[in-house]
Amino acid sequence: MNLINPNLRSVIRPTTFIKSDKLNEHLGLDITIAAETFQRTGSFKFRAAYNLAASVENKAILTASSGNFGQGLAFACRLLGKKCTVVMPLSSAKVKIDAVRNFGAEVDLIDTKIINRNQRVSELAADMPEAYIASAYDDDYVIAGNSTLGEELAKENFDVIIAPVGGGGLISGIIQGLARCNTQTRVFAAEPLLANDGARSFRAGKLIPNEKEPLTIADGARTISLGNRNWQFISGGVEDFIEVEEAEIKDALRKLFELSNLKAEPTGSLSLAAAAKNREMFAGKKICIVVSGGNVDPEIYRSLISG
Amino acid sequence: MNLINPNLRSVIRPTTFIKSDKLNEHLGLDITIAAETFQRTGSFKFRAAYNLAASVENKAILTASSGNFGQGLAFACRLLGKKCTVVMPLSSAKVKIDAVRNFGAEVDLIDTKIINRNQRVSELAADMPEAYIASAYDDDYVIAGNSTLGEELAKENFDVIIAPVGGGGLISGIIQGLARCNTQTRVFAAEPLLANDGARSFRAGKLIPNEKEPLTIADGARTISLGNRNWQFISGGVEDFIEVEEAEIKDALRKLFELSNLKAEPTGSLSLAAAAKNREMFAGKKICIVVSGGNVDPEIYRSLISG
Repeated sequence: MNLINPNLRSVIRPTTFIKSDKLNEHLGLDITIAAETFQRTGSFKFRAAYNLAASVENKAILTASSGNFGQGLAFACRLLGKKCTVVMPLSSAKVKIDAVRNFGAEVDLIDTKIINRNQRVSELAADMPEAYIASAYDDDYVIAGNSTLGEELAKENFDVIIAPVGGGGLISGIIQGLARCNTQTRVFAAEPLLANDGARSFRAGKLIPNEKEPLTIADGARTISLGNRNWQFISGGVEDFIEVEEAEIKDALRKLFELSNLKAEPTGSLSLAAAAKNREMFAGKKICIVVSGGNVDPEIYRSLISG
Repeated sequence: MNLINPNLRSVIRPTTFIKSDKLNEHLGLDITIAAETFQRTGSFKFRAAYNLAASVENKAILTASSGNFGQGLAFACRLLGKKCTVVMPLSSAKVKIDAVRNFGAEVDLIDTKIINRNQRVSELAADMPEAYIASAYDDDYVIAGNSTLGEELAKENFDVIIAPVGGGGLISGIIQGLARCNTQTRVFAAEPLLANDGARSFRAGKLIPNEKEPLTIADGARTISLGNRNWQFISGGVEDFIEVEEAEIKDALRKLFELSNLKAEPTGSLSLAAAAKNREMFAGKKICIVVSGGNVDPEIYRSLISG
């Protein structure tokens, strides 16, 4: 079954390929950056969100997201004339709340000490029986939307692709897209050591969740567990997981800024951190690192680029 | 006479076109960003530098540059196996000196209180009779190299192109490239009010230099005067000059960072500042703003993105 909406490819922006001589000389590697930082709403999530919103028949969509999926879904729904409700913690950065509101969605702010996100989504869903409840990663439309990135990467014939993992929506889509194009490219998953449920699951051969929301600076990876659908792709399609320390994520973000002129968010910097940590393994290979998004608060970014 | 080296187009990277929904909605304009921040060495200057270094027969090239032309020329010469000497003020940012050295050039540091750049170039030239003395803007090879960007922009059929002006090398090349493609696109020049020799010259119909090096944050526009060759293109090919205040440059840089995820240097932000200042004039037009480069010291950038 083809779950890619026929309009999707004309609405999304193709990924931005960047080669940086300074970065490659610094690391001694042949890296091409696939930047989704210039994708609509600033991250790959728009691919997933638009595909979902355009494909389901529901006129209202409900999700819980403090980050990029909320923005992507809000904008997609506006383009499609659908109603969008995004549950966000009161503690979310104001710029993120504003971004979702500016794209026309209704923001439902919750105090996570009183109610958790899923509980609130259930409450709202009871009042909105017509709404589609959207997961940011564990959804077939989400994975199919992200597979358009896999198709774009397949055309470049990379030996290795490294992508960040939170819930697993991005890497599932990449694996699906590559498979559709019959490539031999190997896919590595980059994950914060502080949020390594994916790596632990991969080694154990079964899903093992984090005990609580991990406090990594890579906020896109603060998920409790890979999704069930994502696990099917990851367990069979990922070559290996590479876990990186918080300091390595910061260092990668700074390298992207200083050597490649690229503004990446911490989660987007995971792939470079993983490549930089495994230079011997990746030497001589044609490597693609996926920078998943570029949305980061100015104050946080300021502190991260200060040596 | 075709002054574009036959290898140039395969060595440079095509410009990166970025459309930002957030930026366009914020301004109410239809802007496409042409980012040269991901060009080799991080700015458009590589186009000029490589074309020059590849075209002249001299095995050694000498220039004075505290900025992007030095980096571009150093890297071009290394690719071509030529000797490169770059005169830089002692006060230059360490990261810029390091970048030129890392690309394999010899850096000649001068105390500008004792000797100015042109005097030092003359001194060195006396000892290097085999060397080509390269101007960063007033040189036919430089303009021809930059014309490749004009060709790339011509394909997009913009109504309006806005480009920053320092010595005039970039905008001359854009005008030359557009003319070769017979486009009707109008070209506007963006210049800091603090360094408005171009605007004053344009209004007077003759070259009028600044009295001294202007202290704008747009360091690529700290030139005393447009070049003579550049004046020929500018006086006949520019629609008008738009002068922008320092605060407007900073605001444009912040908008590129926050709304478009683009790391631009202050000089690269001039075009957006000019567009934002003239929204009525540009409304309804298909506008291209050229972001000339992204190389900026982390400490300076940190201070610029802090509200």
